[in-house]
Amino acid sequence: MYKINDNYLKLPGSYLFSTIGKKVAAYSSEHPEKSIIRLGIGDVTQPLAPAILEAMHKAVDEMGDAKTFRGYAPDLGYEFLRNAIAREDYQARGADIKADEIFVSDGAKCDSGNIQEIFSLDNKIAVCDPVYPVYVDTNAMAGRTGTYDAKTEMWSDVIYMPCLEENGFAPELPKETPDLIYLCFPNNPTGSTITKEQLQVWVDYANRAGAVIIYDAAYEAYISEENVPHTIYECQGALNCAIELKSFSKNAGFTGVRLGYTVIPKDLKCGDVSLHALWARRHGTKYNGAPYIIQRAGEAVYSEAGKAQLKEQVAYYMKNAKTIREGLKSAGYTVSGGINAPYIWLKTPGNMTSWEFFDYLLEKAGVVGTPGSGFGPSGEGYFRLTAFGSYENTLAALERIKKM
Amino acid sequence: MYKINDNYLKLPGSYLFSTIGKKVAAYSSEHPEKSIIRLGIGDVTQPLAPAILEAMHKAVDEMGDAKTFRGYAPDLGYEFLRNAIAREDYQARGADIKADEIFVSDGAKCDSGNIQEIFSLDNKIAVCDPVYPVYVDTNAMAGRTGTYDAKTEMWSDVIYMPCLEENGFAPELPKETPDLIYLCFPNNPTGSTITKEQLQVWVDYANRAGAVIIYDAAYEAYISEENVPHTIYECQGALNCAIELKSFSKNAGFTGVRLGYTVIPKDLKCGDVSLHALWARRHGTKYNGAPYIIQRAGEAVYSEAGKAQLKEQVAYYMKNAKTIREGLKSAGYTVSGGINAPYIWLKTPGNMTSWEFFDYLLEKAGVVGTPGSGFGPSGEGYFRLTAFGSYENTLAALERIKKM
Repeated sequence: MYKINDNYLKLPGSYLFSTIGKKVAAYSSEHPEKSIIRLGIGDVTQPLAPAILEAMHKAVDEMGDAKTFRGYAPDLGYEFLRNAIAREDYQARGADIKADEIFVSDGAKCDSGNIQEIFSLDNKIAVCDPVYPVYVDTNAMAGRTGTYDAKTEMWSDVIYMPCLEENGFAPELPKETPDLIYLCFPNNPTGSTITKEQLQVWVDYANRAGAVIIYDAAYEAYISEENVPHTIYECQGALNCAIELKSFSKNAGFTGVRLGYTVIPKDLKCGDVSLHALWARRHGTKYNGAPYIIQRAGEAVYSEAGKAQLKEQVAYYMKNAKTIREGLKSAGYTVSGGINAPYIWLKTPGNMTSWEFFDYLLEKAGVVGTPGSGFGPSGEGYFRLTAFGSYENTLAALERIKKM
Repeated sequence: MYKINDNYLKLPGSYLFSTIGKKVAAYSSEHPEKSIIRLGIGDVTQPLAPAILEAMHKAVDEMGDAKTFRGYAPDLGYEFLRNAIAREDYQARGADIKADEIFVSDGAKCDSGNIQEIFSLDNKIAVCDPVYPVYVDTNAMAGRTGTYDAKTEMWSDVIYMPCLEENGFAPELPKETPDLIYLCFPNNPTGSTITKEQLQVWVDYANRAGAVIIYDAAYEAYISEENVPHTIYECQGALNCAIELKSFSKNAGFTGVRLGYTVIPKDLKCGDVSLHALWARRHGTKYNGAPYIIQRAGEAVYSEAGKAQLKEQVAYYMKNAKTIREGLKSAGYTVSGGINAPYIWLKTPGNMTSWEFFDYLLEKAGVVGTPGSGFGPSGEGYFRLTAFGSYENTLAALERIKKM
């Protein structure tokens, strides 16, 4: 008789955003007359930029002609896209990353969930707390996190690195040495970042400890301050200890288009074994590439027209972030984030739990946010709002919140 | 110090089609004057059908307008696509599959590689031999296949079910009871199929033995004979023991478009645990859906215009299959397949090994095929040619082979 992977049964509840979706759907069907503003899941709302649409139409036409039709893509992704990424996201910033160190994928969620496969099940992970839940959940599914304690909401074999008001939402080096360190800056959900000097401390630590940093830079496009690193490879020694994950979801509005990439430098080795070779093997065996049409859309992100249009799109969302941040502050909330990230992190008022505030906000204001506790135990008592709505909806949501 | 997943190091060589790609590239750069005809990797060459192009252009336009823009897709895929699949691929054939039992993905390669994750590492797999290498390789990466013997080219913990000329390339029930049984019909690489009665024997066996059948029906559109099942759910009891994988790559030319789906009936349970729920959890946690534009392309496959255009496309490739099959026969080769599948399976002449014949064919005729041994030890001495080239190239390849 076959058996299931019972690590799945250890997972508490369902995936955070599925739970939110179900709660909102239930509320809507009970109160069909109420208008709901969604500032919960980090989904974008602005249409794709014209340069991207043009590239996609052209690629669709190419697929309709035998002379320009494209079948299976090259294993790592098309060179036209990997060259653009290497040039614009790395070499232009002084980071020595080459096109053949880049693996194009259908998004950073898949990559951040799958990357753990190339590591031993014995490895111990460290995560910021709170953080994007996919890192812990996918390690739990693989059987790397021990047992779950429903009371503390913690796994026995995970090193949690609290990110709280006290430490400026920046994690401290862990006391116990981890094997894999997940870092996400600008951070989801807190919206905080660390400086280049602070990140250098992590790189030095990883190289000393023999750990790999899995660096999720999905929100890099929202960095507005100086001295905040746009890639971990701005730090000395990162080529020997860091994998970087990037997404097109937030900088180009690709949440429904699906494109991302992972960088594994060829200098990153475990003894004689190149992690690049392991990931190449995984990519070649279990994946068949992002669609040609979508890879052309990704290339357009780096065109002159694309860059100008997307700069405006990011500015549009960051105007929302400012509206939320300042609006909440004036209403007496304690807030952070929203300066180098499209996320605003607020303390729930009156000692409400995160889920209590979720229900309160939904019922009183018809606004959907994300409970901080969904991102880890140290997120309890916090709440995330996103800047990805329309400006009109963002303004309306703030008016409603102020009236509560 | 972190450790890698050393199961990867047990894998022999690189992924089959990566190896072929490298060999052909090396030959081409040494002999730039030689024209090469590729009948190796199962990649299509005909352009996308007009109905599909139209649907994609329309979807791209929708993504350019805030009113019709789509972000993250629903976890299982868009209903418009799942409804079309349930209706056309299942209910129209008398198979009781509902839209919420279908999980849309970016292709059957990913699904066939990922599906093993929801099962225990203790489970033992059985595979047809030869077969599509992804089933065994991905189980090897997960650590489910024991040790590899380079001499026999077999894993210690895999049950191989030889498919040879003697048994009509149809596997017999294994002596040792497996937990997971991978079946692929019409078969890749042999091009053979089994009848509905033969498949019923497998379904009954799985239900009796407490095994799950993972049924890969990627080549279903090529079935031309009566009494060959188009889905495993035509068999009684399959809802309790079978998962089905489908692809749009071969019926609609989506190798570079990327779309597939997995069916897990809600009646498929291991004790109290629904496999549907486990896969839903995996899908929700590690995947973010196929692109909206691509899901619209998939919907167009089921439109009246789409169905008519794709019927012609399949007929075009099957004319190639007939050309190869009959051409090889007339040249004295022993061949099978090519009637219900776009693959022709031939015995290598003069006791050549599969790779010897690969080199011979490349050098003497400039034709690329796929060595049978790449699909499993019982594939040794066989060779696969695909019908996915253009008709002109297929004719030219046959002329060259006849002249060898």
